[in-house]
Amino acid sequence: MRVLFDNVNVDENEILSYSNKVKSIVDNLESRKDKDDDFVGWLNVGIDKSEIDRIKNTALKIRKQAEVLLVIGIGGSYLGARAVDSALSDKKLEIIYVGFNLCSNYIKSVIDYIKDKDFVINVISKSGTTTEVAIAFRIFREILESRYNDFKDRIYITTDSTKGALRNLANKCGYTSFVIPNNIGGRYSLLTAAQLLPIACSGVDIEKLINGAKEAYLKYRNLDVLNNECFRYAISRNILYNKNNFIEILSNYDLRLSYFSKWWQQLFGESEGKDNKGIFPVNLDFTTDLHSMGQYIQEGRRNLFETVIFVDCEDDLIIKHEEDDMDNINYLEGKSINYINKMAMQGTITAHFSADVSNFVILLDKLDEFELGSLIFFFEYSCAISSMLMNVNPFNQPGVEEYKRNMFKLLNKPGF
Amino acid sequence: MRVLFDNVNVDENEILSYSNKVKSIVDNLESRKDKDDDFVGWLNVGIDKSEIDRIKNTALKIRKQAEVLLVIGIGGSYLGARAVDSALSDKKLEIIYVGFNLCSNYIKSVIDYIKDKDFVINVISKSGTTTEVAIAFRIFREILESRYNDFKDRIYITTDSTKGALRNLANKCGYTSFVIPNNIGGRYSLLTAAQLLPIACSGVDIEKLINGAKEAYLKYRNLDVLNNECFRYAISRNILYNKNNFIEILSNYDLRLSYFSKWWQQLFGESEGKDNKGIFPVNLDFTTDLHSMGQYIQEGRRNLFETVIFVDCEDDLIIKHEEDDMDNINYLEGKSINYINKMAMQGTITAHFSADVSNFVILLDKLDEFELGSLIFFFEYSCAISSMLMNVNPFNQPGVEEYKRNMFKLLNKPGF
Repeated sequence: MRVLFDNVNVDENEILSYSNKVKSIVDNLESRKDKDDDFVGWLNVGIDKSEIDRIKNTALKIRKQAEVLLVIGIGGSYLGARAVDSALSDKKLEIIYVGFNLCSNYIKSVIDYIKDKDFVINVISKSGTTTEVAIAFRIFREILESRYNDFKDRIYITTDSTKGALRNLANKCGYTSFVIPNNIGGRYSLLTAAQLLPIACSGVDIEKLINGAKEAYLKYRNLDVLNNECFRYAISRNILYNKNNFIEILSNYDLRLSYFSKWWQQLFGESEGKDNKGIFPVNLDFTTDLHSMGQYIQEGRRNLFETVIFVDCEDDLIIKHEEDDMDNINYLEGKSINYINKMAMQGTITAHFSADVSNFVILLDKLDEFELGSLIFFFEYSCAISSMLMNVNPFNQPGVEEYKRNMFKLLNKPGF
Repeated sequence: MRVLFDNVNVDENEILSYSNKVKSIVDNLESRKDKDDDFVGWLNVGIDKSEIDRIKNTALKIRKQAEVLLVIGIGGSYLGARAVDSALSDKKLEIIYVGFNLCSNYIKSVIDYIKDKDFVINVISKSGTTTEVAIAFRIFREILESRYNDFKDRIYITTDSTKGALRNLANKCGYTSFVIPNNIGGRYSLLTAAQLLPIACSGVDIEKLINGAKEAYLKYRNLDVLNNECFRYAISRNILYNKNNFIEILSNYDLRLSYFSKWWQQLFGESEGKDNKGIFPVNLDFTTDLHSMGQYIQEGRRNLFETVIFVDCEDDLIIKHEEDDMDNINYLEGKSINYINKMAMQGTITAHFSADVSNFVILLDKLDEFELGSLIFFFEYSCAISSMLMNVNPFNQPGVEEYKRNMFKLLNKPGF
């Protein structure tokens, strides 16, 4: 992957002025990454080879065992897995996500859909008592237990190493289980056992995914901030933010990355959005959303910038000649759809930048495990640095409890 | 539907001070609605009974004729149909949307999917030469023509009444066709022949949908702005905007309305986002996005407000008792999922409002054609009024041409 800064309205000297700040943040993060009581463990990219093998073997078993894998999780225990699955799945095992909403209609549609399908469950939750997840697990576990004699062999639990409802259940019933690490928060847990089981089940090579992230970490150790794409992105975002750019749009041109955009939204929104600060992260899919939000980006309030993701892959879907050319697109004859998409991207970047909208451009040469792993780490690392440059703690989320407390009161939960 | 304003930080006297302005805007719109060379035709809600019957009969035919309806359209010729289809489809005919992107992988996946499916096409485009649409139509028409002898009976064209590539094609080949009205822009065309064919194909009663909108129009003629929910919403948005609330989140608690949110985003974004003005519209699905953007909304920059949509329907999916209660949700025993969802909504509104985030709350008693039609008109009308209060023209979109010009140049389109 490459990151281009040509269409970003930020001065190089201004970027350089952040060098010392970034160095001290990097030192700070490095000094914390081995601590068990902190949340910087993700900086030690990768997990034990033995755990990788256990995940891969379990995934192989599940892919033979069932037609459908129900993944039950929400937030940081959901978005990352779905992002990678959507981008790279080989589609040999159907993966359906539940437990990420309280939408009765959706849950019923899944109950109905799996009626005649052979399914297994992977429930992912640190506490095991998150409302959405607990409800979905109760519903689908009951179906599983009433349908299969070997139901114990069809429940896979991903949770805390020692405590919580799911750990107790796994111990009591002897379910296969995986461990969500203690020193990594949900939104930073994509490349850990917290989310790798469904990813492996989707046919993705999880070692290559991790290797992409590892390589990215090595690449981004360079303290020359102008030539370190990751640091330059983090710094430039802050400079733009300080110039009243309060919205960042992830402009994605490949529908396979739509869920990746949602993972990115959580990563940045939950990390930066506190203390009355933060860039508001929005995801749009182009070119489709150019036909809805393009007008605003071009001519609305000048308080936003974009980060563009484009996958520049080979494409054999070619526009053919048509005799009468009634639709006026014979001029595209012989061109691939992806090429046309790329010209749309380039034309859009020029148009938006000419209207004072800065555009970071991330180009992937292809969409595979290695590239995606690199991109994941790029965003994780730049997000941590960017948040700390903003003087907020990237690793907590104190604001998400408030609505839950209100909800528990309304639901007469004991203790609230 | 009802709109609640209890959690909106706007003073009633301030709302009243807009009365005269709103009256003159209403008069202005009313005086323009019958003009053929203006874009206010949507205010004459509904279409000819004979045209409704023709759409319904064509839909009945298509539902018998095929397994899959491919709808080819983008922007205003796509979002509305998909919104209503997603919300209310009876799922008897599969509808697949193409032509709304330049994502090669997506197009290939549809080509592959329909390989063994019996399909027909409805292409929707005023000009017939919109790049995404023209490309998709060329690709899928070729498949259709090579596969079926009766291909002429499998192409349904929705386009301009007299001119353009698709009108010429329809005339030349004798395809069944429907007319996109001249005096209604794409994003305001949901309740016209522009989008009603795929909606009728999804099993939706289009007359009831239109009736919901008609009733809403009658209801919202009241010039008492405090008691007219539609005007009050439009005015209050402006007041909030003038107090530095630059982002509006449509917080939707029912996944069936996810695409409706995207329709809403185009409606407001493209109508208001010009002259360096406009509220930036964002759509989130709750509760899932509370686990990603909840932190930002609660504690990030105080420059946003929310419009909440909740469908308060009957629900027979009930939480059951479990002996050991390891997941700690026995306290929810006997409660329906929708009730829990509602308490999540109420708890969230209280939490966000306590953090200075105003919340408009739209309650639907059920999700059916009538209610959805009312909601569509509520937003169309309030959007027009709100934009005009902002002194922008709600019915043009001058900014969407810029990227296209650049793209055409890059693609060597003749004339660019």
